[in-house]
Amino acid sequence: MGEELTEPGGGVRLYVEAPLGHHVRVTPDEGQAHYLLHVMRAKVGDLLTLFNGRDGEWSARIAEVSKRTCVLECKTQIGAQREVPDLWLVFAPVKKTPADYLTQKATELGVRVLQPVFTRRTIVTRVNTDRMRANAIEAAEQSGRVSVPETREAVGFEKLLAHWPAERRIFFCDEAGDAKPIADVLRDAPDERCAIFTGPEGGFESREREALRALANVTPVSLGTRILRADTAALAALAVWQAIKGDWRA
Amino acid sequence: MGEELTEPGGGVRLYVEAPLGHHVRVTPDEGQAHYLLHVMRAKVGDLLTLFNGRDGEWSARIAEVSKRTCVLECKTQIGAQREVPDLWLVFAPVKKTPADYLTQKATELGVRVLQPVFTRRTIVTRVNTDRMRANAIEAAEQSGRVSVPETREAVGFEKLLAHWPAERRIFFCDEAGDAKPIADVLRDAPDERCAIFTGPEGGFESREREALRALANVTPVSLGTRILRADTAALAALAVWQAIKGDWRA
Repeated sequence: MGEELTEPGGGVRLYVEAPLGHHVRVTPDEGQAHYLLHVMRAKVGDLLTLFNGRDGEWSARIAEVSKRTCVLECKTQIGAQREVPDLWLVFAPVKKTPADYLTQKATELGVRVLQPVFTRRTIVTRVNTDRMRANAIEAAEQSGRVSVPETREAVGFEKLLAHWPAERRIFFCDEAGDAKPIADVLRDAPDERCAIFTGPEGGFESREREALRALANVTPVSLGTRILRADTAALAALAVWQAIKGDWRA
Repeated sequence: MGEELTEPGGGVRLYVEAPLGHHVRVTPDEGQAHYLLHVMRAKVGDLLTLFNGRDGEWSARIAEVSKRTCVLECKTQIGAQREVPDLWLVFAPVKKTPADYLTQKATELGVRVLQPVFTRRTIVTRVNTDRMRANAIEAAEQSGRVSVPETREAVGFEKLLAHWPAERRIFFCDEAGDAKPIADVLRDAPDERCAIFTGPEGGFESREREALRALANVTPVSLGTRILRADTAALAALAVWQAIKGDWRA
């Protein structure tokens, strides 16, 4: 029957866009084929896991191999489709290496949407959405997720607020104000659609803080008095949310 | 009176080892002198902040400048000595870039001690303690801490357990077992000396888990079912601890 393709940390899991189902055949993309054939030295009959964010998790085998590509065939469904909690991360983008790190960690921590937003003090002027997407896919594969977070194009602060969905609560990490401690706020919060909103290194401008607080469904939260880097604040708030409101609960 | 040396994120804060007090003069080390004179282009009379982990936070001025070094003179104490909560991070070391990141973030998140430990599945075989110390100092300066976490030499798992202080509770991040959710455990935990203990990418071996659970003051905790990288797990657990048990509380 072939062997399971393994590496430190577990078997190979690949995200694909194609539909998955009994005996369905899938052609991996160029990078995946290279990884399977030349990094993992996969042979016909070897097993791996596939998911596409819609059809659950499938055990598949390598059905054909040619020089440059291969064909994978779904065998059995090994897990149902499941979703992470309905939590978005809205964040002022950071530079390259911290941005990679932030995307990977936020994916492991189980966000559903990654939404970069340009605030006035944001120094980064461009977001590489393709790179963000690639990082999110890799982290989803490695973390055992059956879904990849949606990576959105960056938007300006005013536009984001103007189109903010009324039914989604924003927990806004406010280092400058009189915000209540995040654990106190989350402990008393109802179960609803949520977003964590974190600012750039220099913080939000006061007019941005006012605009945020003027929205009906915004709750400022405090992450203590030490100065956290932008990416630290985002990951810390996501972890605390998952622990108190998310799927780290029993 | 000179001007405050500023950069994105706030004024210059430097950690020094020398005693601090009224009119006390301090000579920065070579790297700090280079940074002040050639990166920040400091001049006599410019102001900065000093701390040493014992004498509080001091406003100092640049009293003398020569080609290669300078002399700083303490003016007024601007903050009392204060400590972070009594929380240690015990962690299986990770490779270079994630290790830098982990040290920086753990410092921002307010740990008192960083203790690397070699478990059976730890892949990294060497910890650069000097580099860890330098990262901790830089993060302490930038995060507004008045103390630098103690960065300890790496030890083996058995040795660590054999010498573990009886009065310090270990919250052990156990991905394999029946551990209770971290928020539930911390909510009911008494205030005491604590450590977060996180394993390597491949997790603890079962005999290590048993050895840990056999200690009197060890509580396993769960961070959910997604697979977290070693550094993500450590940072997530620290953030949740600060939010529920630490100084992010009101």
